[in-house]
Amino acid sequence: MKAALVDGSGTISALERIRTPHDGERTADAVLAAVAGTAERFALEHPEVVPVAAGLLVPGHVDDESGVGILSENLHWRNVPFRDRLESLIDLPVVFSHDVRGAGEAEYRLGAAAGFSDVVVMAIGTGVAGAIFIGGTLYTGGGMAGEMGHSRVADGPACACGGIGCLEAVASASAIARRYNARTGASVAGAKEVLSRAQAGDPDAVWVWETALDALALDLSHTVALLAPEAIVIAGGLSQAGPALFEPLARRLDDILTFHRRPQLLRATIGEDAGVIGAALRARDLIASRELTT
Amino acid sequence: MKAALVDGSGTISALERIRTPHDGERTADAVLAAVAGTAERFALEHPEVVPVAAGLLVPGHVDDESGVGILSENLHWRNVPFRDRLESLIDLPVVFSHDVRGAGEAEYRLGAAAGFSDVVVMAIGTGVAGAIFIGGTLYTGGGMAGEMGHSRVADGPACACGGIGCLEAVASASAIARRYNARTGASVAGAKEVLSRAQAGDPDAVWVWETALDALALDLSHTVALLAPEAIVIAGGLSQAGPALFEPLARRLDDILTFHRRPQLLRATIGEDAGVIGAALRARDLIASRELTT
Repeated sequence: MKAALVDGSGTISALERIRTPHDGERTADAVLAAVAGTAERFALEHPEVVPVAAGLLVPGHVDDESGVGILSENLHWRNVPFRDRLESLIDLPVVFSHDVRGAGEAEYRLGAAAGFSDVVVMAIGTGVAGAIFIGGTLYTGGGMAGEMGHSRVADGPACACGGIGCLEAVASASAIARRYNARTGASVAGAKEVLSRAQAGDPDAVWVWETALDALALDLSHTVALLAPEAIVIAGGLSQAGPALFEPLARRLDDILTFHRRPQLLRATIGEDAGVIGAALRARDLIASRELTT
Repeated sequence: MKAALVDGSGTISALERIRTPHDGERTADAVLAAVAGTAERFALEHPEVVPVAAGLLVPGHVDDESGVGILSENLHWRNVPFRDRLESLIDLPVVFSHDVRGAGEAEYRLGAAAGFSDVVVMAIGTGVAGAIFIGGTLYTGGGMAGEMGHSRVADGPACACGGIGCLEAVASASAIARRYNARTGASVAGAKEVLSRAQAGDPDAVWVWETALDALALDLSHTVALLAPEAIVIAGGLSQAGPALFEPLARRLDDILTFHRRPQLLRATIGEDAGVIGAALRARDLIASRELTT
């Protein structure tokens, strides 16, 4: 978990990382307590700062509108009213959203996609998920949009979600490492090592990396055919591969597409702080909307 | 081409079909002249009706906002300012859009999808194309959204667009007939005959029909993962297959999806007049917006 104290100009004046407090069925309670604890520490360490609102982002299935964490299998919660509970705990207005949508908002408004109207931000790390912006506005689909990580793009392997050949099971950073290890008996720690080995000519690494690129390009081609976004931003750990990812991916996408509107394929520019910046942007929006109505 | 005289309550008081006047590079001129001729005939035959606006829908790549038909390869036009030219010809305010988006709007506002907010309408006939509605509003993607007919869903066959395995090349009504004829040397006229033969046990017809359903389900599963629409409406000729289409399609889609939000899979209810009704709805919107601003 990561928390930041962000001022009105968007500058981060304090940043804290804490280990997510896994506690079985009580994980949501533990997470909320940890968030409240962080708020308290920030207040003690930065008495000059008077916080006016908080933004909270969590993974899983999230209903932004009602402020409820509907489901996280990894974190063992279901239908937790995070927004209302945190408001009670810290006595501040709270805005609540999904981690990828929050980070996507930062890329959309301040980062790689600033200046575009219709944009898909896709985060590729341990999983694959996205945020969709249309005509200047985030589209949440009841909290279920942007799950392209669970689109079928290949005949296999099986995905943790129960599906077959999901993008996330083929092309997430974790899947790239896992598939390479399964194929070779190696125990590389991540996709970066697979890419290095591929660049050094290891045929198994080449195969894993290229099939991941094929899967990503196929998925993006569906997104382009359906939505014709002006830009697609790729964020998350895998985007750090830079040109080794973007150049062959753009070529593959171009090979699949015909008359379609070609999107700009952009690398996220805000990077690992996009989540806390997105949360702060939303919190600022919340304050602005309350000022407008009072 | 089809034209209707529609009153303020949405009742069609006259309907005319005319053959599209193909005239090579001059087809746009010929189409505009034919539209103006129809308006003149309606005025003569219905002197009791005082038209206040017109809606014009065309196929191809259409920019709704600027009122321009950007490209139709079949109809040989490029960058034709249909809206402005028709306004000059008939001296009425004109609203201009894409045929599938116009028909989709009728299904969205008055037909199968009335009452839903986030909806994809997919028309399957000689081609496959869709209209996307998000939060109550049509999303056009610069006129290029909804081209799921040109999403790759199989390894083949080649598509007229230059792509490989496009949905339209596998599962449009035309493709179903064409693929059956190519496989068997038969010369069936349409998908309806292929379905009849499949139901009678013809193994080639079964294969063609089932691979079309597989392709449709795969494409819909991508749409669901990305957009999580509340409803997907299937319109166009193929939707007339009714339960023989919808039941196996829903089963296949359900087999692919896991935790995703399941859309309602609905058959279009307005049917073949959806285009003229959608055009009339848009024309009424245009009048309403002008009244608001004057």
